[in-house]
Amino acid sequence: MASPEIEALTQALAKLPGLGPRSARRAVLHLLKKREAALGPLLSALMAVEERLSTCSICGNIDTTNPCGVCADPRRDARALCVVEEVADLWALDRSRLFPGRFHVLGGRLSALEGVRPEDLAIDSLVRRIAEGGIDEVVLAMNATLEGQTTAHYIIERIERFPVRITQLAHGLPVGGELDYLDEGTLAQALRARRPVG
Amino acid sequence: MASPEIEALTQALAKLPGLGPRSARRAVLHLLKKREAALGPLLSALMAVEERLSTCSICGNIDTTNPCGVCADPRRDARALCVVEEVADLWALDRSRLFPGRFHVLGGRLSALEGVRPEDLAIDSLVRRIAEGGIDEVVLAMNATLEGQTTAHYIIERIERFPVRITQLAHGLPVGGELDYLDEGTLAQALRARRPVG
Repeated sequence: MASPEIEALTQALAKLPGLGPRSARRAVLHLLKKREAALGPLLSALMAVEERLSTCSICGNIDTTNPCGVCADPRRDARALCVVEEVADLWALDRSRLFPGRFHVLGGRLSALEGVRPEDLAIDSLVRRIAEGGIDEVVLAMNATLEGQTTAHYIIERIERFPVRITQLAHGLPVGGELDYLDEGTLAQALRARRPVG
Repeated sequence: MASPEIEALTQALAKLPGLGPRSARRAVLHLLKKREAALGPLLSALMAVEERLSTCSICGNIDTTNPCGVCADPRRDARALCVVEEVADLWALDRSRLFPGRFHVLGGRLSALEGVRPEDLAIDSLVRRIAEGGIDEVVLAMNATLEGQTTAHYIIERIERFPVRITQLAHGLPVGGELDYLDEGTLAQALRARRPVG
């Protein structure tokens, strides 16, 4: 029988998204077989994350400093605020280097199915940031899903009383998208938002 | 951008079998979001494994003691030795509680494709264990794959000079196997090894 230590590690890994009990067992065996090449680096990486990373108290980003590097960067345009669902979305937008402003991470999306209510998300703190002033534009960069759009509508209701311009990411054809392979929803959005050319 | 700590953790997780760069990133975000429920337990489970587990110097099993619990168990039949490819195979056979003897873990299988040669596996130590005497039967429990069977044949050549009975796991229909859905190789094995009934 596997020892209790191995069982505990298997169960901890099995809780990660993308890994189930069987693949977690395979991962554990890989770690045990490659102790120095795999287990050591994973352990020290986890310890570094555990010790050094914290959540930014302003925007909800995860970084080694608080406020995070984005919030503390004086070259960033403090008048533009981009609202995203998750930290991963912030990183994706930040990797693209297309948005010069700051961010606000909600920590999820409204979902009746999963029981996520407005008070479970960082919406009150978003309203406070906007109420404090100094922000001209709020970009709602929610996912193009039903829940993302529901969340965006809820936020619009909460912040439309402030003198800020509220914008949303455009919906339409993705780059390289072939009409034949796109879903009807995307096609409908692209057609509805069609623009004059020439 | 994600901090170097997060990049390092993503890369360490991406090396696990079953996880790629994208799913590793998702796993990292899950760990960051559920620090206390997910990151903490995973970290302590990894530390326990790192600190307490070692490889049995007799059979290659992984356990908290050396020799391992199986090798140290006096109720086990020391005259029967089951040779397996991986520690996981040992655990699978041990879970079934069907084999009363001891084990020998090769640590892999011969593979020209992956460059695994006899000296990369625990074959010399197997030959030594058998040469020391006290063993009546050696059960070759390799996987029913080309490489597993190649490994079995190589081991037979190395140990057939000793006065031990060498057996192999039976090949044939798996329990619940429907003929219609089985591959031809399994059907051929089952037909070749057919037995008289009644």
